[in-house]
Amino acid sequence: MFFEGSEKKIELRVKQGNASLRGFSRDFWEQGLALAGADILSVLSNGECDAYVLSESSLFVWDSKVLLITCGNTNLIEAAVFLIDELNVDNIASFTYQRKSEFLSHLQATRFEDDCQLLRSRLNGTAYRVGHLDGHHHYLFCSETTEMLSRSTSLLMYHIKGDIAEYLRQPNQTKAQILALLQLPKLLPEFVFDDHLFEPCGYSINGLYGEHFLTMHITPQEHSAYVSIETNLNFEQSSFNIFSSMLKILTPCSWDIISVNQQLSADSYPLHIEVACCELALNAANSFNYKHYIQPVREELTAAVIKV
Amino acid sequence: MFFEGSEKKIELRVKQGNASLRGFSRDFWEQGLALAGADILSVLSNGECDAYVLSESSLFVWDSKVLLITCGNTNLIEAAVFLIDELNVDNIASFTYQRKSEFLSHLQATRFEDDCQLLRSRLNGTAYRVGHLDGHHHYLFCSETTEMLSRSTSLLMYHIKGDIAEYLRQPNQTKAQILALLQLPKLLPEFVFDDHLFEPCGYSINGLYGEHFLTMHITPQEHSAYVSIETNLNFEQSSFNIFSSMLKILTPCSWDIISVNQQLSADSYPLHIEVACCELALNAANSFNYKHYIQPVREELTAAVIKV
Repeated sequence: MFFEGSEKKIELRVKQGNASLRGFSRDFWEQGLALAGADILSVLSNGECDAYVLSESSLFVWDSKVLLITCGNTNLIEAAVFLIDELNVDNIASFTYQRKSEFLSHLQATRFEDDCQLLRSRLNGTAYRVGHLDGHHHYLFCSETTEMLSRSTSLLMYHIKGDIAEYLRQPNQTKAQILALLQLPKLLPEFVFDDHLFEPCGYSINGLYGEHFLTMHITPQEHSAYVSIETNLNFEQSSFNIFSSMLKILTPCSWDIISVNQQLSADSYPLHIEVACCELALNAANSFNYKHYIQPVREELTAAVIKV
Repeated sequence: MFFEGSEKKIELRVKQGNASLRGFSRDFWEQGLALAGADILSVLSNGECDAYVLSESSLFVWDSKVLLITCGNTNLIEAAVFLIDELNVDNIASFTYQRKSEFLSHLQATRFEDDCQLLRSRLNGTAYRVGHLDGHHHYLFCSETTEMLSRSTSLLMYHIKGDIAEYLRQPNQTKAQILALLQLPKLLPEFVFDDHLFEPCGYSINGLYGEHFLTMHITPQEHSAYVSIETNLNFEQSSFNIFSSMLKILTPCSWDIISVNQQLSADSYPLHIEVACCELALNAANSFNYKHYIQPVREELTAAVIKV
């Protein structure tokens, strides 16, 4: 019942003057995704963006930007190289690659260091690790760029608990009930959503509102429970914080907030301790911000019996 | 500069009526250790025990018990099988195998599940994991036994900080200075010690006092800083707690306490939060106890630049 929820992610922006990326056919995206080992399950479009729910996470395509997130044992770096080559490296304004440390890293096809070596055969950039090797850590490759990267923020939740977490592990869930429990249509009434329920469990949802997106992926399985949310909503302008709502609904034991070019206030989060932080200036124009929080409660662990 | 400090450990006890294990020649132990990929560096003996400092951790041999601890990329399970076969499984009263999750598990020759499969070709037992896959976790295999296992307690410290931690990373350390900084001869005046300083850094020390032992292994390297101490001292009888002293000297960001058949009080530890615990009844006679602590301070992480 193990599924690797931890994601790899690329954001690629083309220079001004390029044809819209939305002009590429579905075949084109399917060809790239096949190299990573992912399929398209559904698509939602508005005037600004095409949002694809994938067999492993999500793909968003704007006129001049692609955001591709994959989980499981996918080989995202192969899709990244495909895109760089197809678009021609000279047309690329900025490229970032992020990779979350996996629950079971030995099942992955490559390590981050391997991925960087491949990327560096195409473009220059700097690679970082934020966080200790013996805990949650995040890898980041950022191409040499003077452009300002898109504002983006991720909430990664570990070991969700409570009634809603339990519901998400049940065999007879429904999409409608999950959506109601997560309260997303109520919290984000302007958004249009497209969701998918996996067998035997697991849930993905993409949402669009103008140029704004939100994507959420739930891996509810007991020993690898993980939920990620990513959005380009501007938390500094908004008086309400969608992350706080999700933290209250899913009550994770611990969580990370990762943001590019955005500062978040933790004021409305449930009771927490900030145990680690990192501010990283990627270059003159861009900053990467990491914070790790835990609930201030003692977790009573149950030993897992290992059957071989 | 990476070195895997995380240890694997076996404790094997023979039934009453067997010849003393101390009667085996040095050649015998060297033969077993070679299978794991470790060498003997020095030996300290008293009336009760032979204590060997190894190229990777330590070996202790009493009349009816062996405790073998190895770190790095050693293949301890091969030495375990050698001992089981040489001693004959019918003569074994109890056998336990513990394995700490590694900083870089992909560099290991085997996984815990593989190790258990091999063990089960020799003896029956139950295997457990304590702790989440995405954090520090501990594996334990315990043979079917009605005997009471030896009292033992480990303190595992992660990301040591401060002046003494810095000293341990320096190129021109000396054994005498490390011993003085750790204050072990002052804290444990009855003990006789045998220590070894590794190149370019890393320190191991064994101590004996009657049937009591203490062993400490320091991997000071910045990104994988780890220190382990194990002892069979009785903390319930002793008014003083050697672990508290070491925590104050090495100021780790977080630490684990793992004990078999012993309860420890955290009263004298430096300021801390207990974030996780597990009480596991191995069988009617034996209990395994795990606690994870953190310092209640925010750690400011520095991003590591990854050079490929």
